[in-house]
Amino acid sequence: MELQDARVTIVGLGLIGGSMALDLRQHAGRLTGVETDPRSAELARRAGIMTLDLEAAAARCDVLVLATPVGEILRLLERFAADPPALKLLIDVGSTKRRITQAMEQLPEHVPALGGHPLCGKELGGFAAAEPGLFDGSPFVLTPCARSDSQALMLAEAVVQALGATPLRMDAERHDRLMAVVSHLPYLLSAALMGSAESVAQNEPDLWSLAATGFLSTSRLAASELTMIADVLSTNRDMALQALSRAQAELEQLHELLAGLDDDSLRQHLAPLQQRRVSLAIAAGDGDGT
Amino acid sequence: MELQDARVTIVGLGLIGGSMALDLRQHAGRLTGVETDPRSAELARRAGIMTLDLEAAAARCDVLVLATPVGEILRLLERFAADPPALKLLIDVGSTKRRITQAMEQLPEHVPALGGHPLCGKELGGFAAAEPGLFDGSPFVLTPCARSDSQALMLAEAVVQALGATPLRMDAERHDRLMAVVSHLPYLLSAALMGSAESVAQNEPDLWSLAATGFLSTSRLAASELTMIADVLSTNRDMALQALSRAQAELEQLHELLAGLDDDSLRQHLAPLQQRRVSLAIAAGDGDGT
Repeated sequence: MELQDARVTIVGLGLIGGSMALDLRQHAGRLTGVETDPRSAELARRAGIMTLDLEAAAARCDVLVLATPVGEILRLLERFAADPPALKLLIDVGSTKRRITQAMEQLPEHVPALGGHPLCGKELGGFAAAEPGLFDGSPFVLTPCARSDSQALMLAEAVVQALGATPLRMDAERHDRLMAVVSHLPYLLSAALMGSAESVAQNEPDLWSLAATGFLSTSRLAASELTMIADVLSTNRDMALQALSRAQAELEQLHELLAGLDDDSLRQHLAPLQQRRVSLAIAAGDGDGT
Repeated sequence: MELQDARVTIVGLGLIGGSMALDLRQHAGRLTGVETDPRSAELARRAGIMTLDLEAAAARCDVLVLATPVGEILRLLERFAADPPALKLLIDVGSTKRRITQAMEQLPEHVPALGGHPLCGKELGGFAAAEPGLFDGSPFVLTPCARSDSQALMLAEAVVQALGATPLRMDAERHDRLMAVVSHLPYLLSAALMGSAESVAQNEPDLWSLAATGFLSTSRLAASELTMIADVLSTNRDMALQALSRAQAELEQLHELLAGLDDDSLRQHLAPLQQRRVSLAIAAGDGDGT
């Protein structure tokens, strides 16, 4: 089956699911959304996306995309374990992958499931933040399970290509380990920055008026939707803690260098990090690296 | 004397000095720049900014703006201590203020000096990054010294207004304490994030291809120009260390909450920080908070 003939259902029309819906409706045989939040559902309908309840939408589709926060994805998989829909592909787009692919392996054998994660986000949620082309040019990780058959993989790659993203296959363990460093750790550092500033602002409410571009950029992820981030941290706890420990050791080293009055050593420590970050900005084709 | 009659000299035509020059030339009686880096000097001349050497430019001006990194500002002030130019205003725009205003107080009594700091930056440097309107709508801190007379203050506020910025008076000690939290700490956290990622990337070079918007935003300040940041840290060491200790305690608390499996407590800890960060984004008139 080709994507253009497939009936696609997206469960969750927030930022990720909504943006996928806006792109995929051009490429799928039929596209249906499921959204329990009345505001996102209404906005999606106004954008021309047909919505149905979960039972009806899941019963009559070929490709089912789970695009809710991770906790809700796990609840949906548990529900399908008892009464799985007949599908050509079951894929999720949650931000952690081990727990989800483990749950997928618990489904009846004939369910062709695999994990996915588009590496593109904003800290805003809801269909109001959705936009066509959100995934264009970004990597889209696919984490196949033992049960992911070739048709499921082909359909998943067709979905990724329809979004303009680049499929990147890796196992769930490696995904979670690397995302702990490039995504979950940045969130934790942002939150620590907000916590530090908040405690100073108790006695210095003017502090916030001094928060310029650098502060806003570094603290941006602390605005992430709480359910989303809480689910991510609780389903990737061990690796998030490992990444956090690593950053704590880095900060301890910075503390020692700065306290040690040895500015040459401090500069030698910072120089390669500066060069790497400049080269990332250039690689991202983004002069100011934001 | 009004700004429109004043001969203004800006020493250092990098991002900050260059952007000031592009704005102030419409408002000053005459504007001259001093720049030792040949590339920035050439770009400034091509943009129509007259350049002179320091001796010539400082000898014949009314308002002298020191817009180099902090270490060079301190060296310039030391030089002026022996042979001060006759000025209506000597102002700097360095990122820390205690050491600079202390050095200003060492100048002969008749030099009408005060400290300044426009709270707007990018991590890029050089005249190539300069742009008109860079300071529009941003706060511009002024830290008067005992010697800052009313004419100097009036001229400084005229400069700030000509840039479209909002003057904000505070003492140098408070400036440095607050900037440690909203600027120097974000830099240190960014550098720790880059250090953590770099150590993981030793064995996982693909890590960088997974670094999406969240990582780029949180690590952006680590690309800051090294001389600039090294000068800032060494002239605000005590308060940067204080802010760093505060963030280390925040991270330790996050570590404990995450390791403690108590997701409700973690969420209760994160919720007010999330709300504050969302309100900052709204206050900055910036939907996605970058």
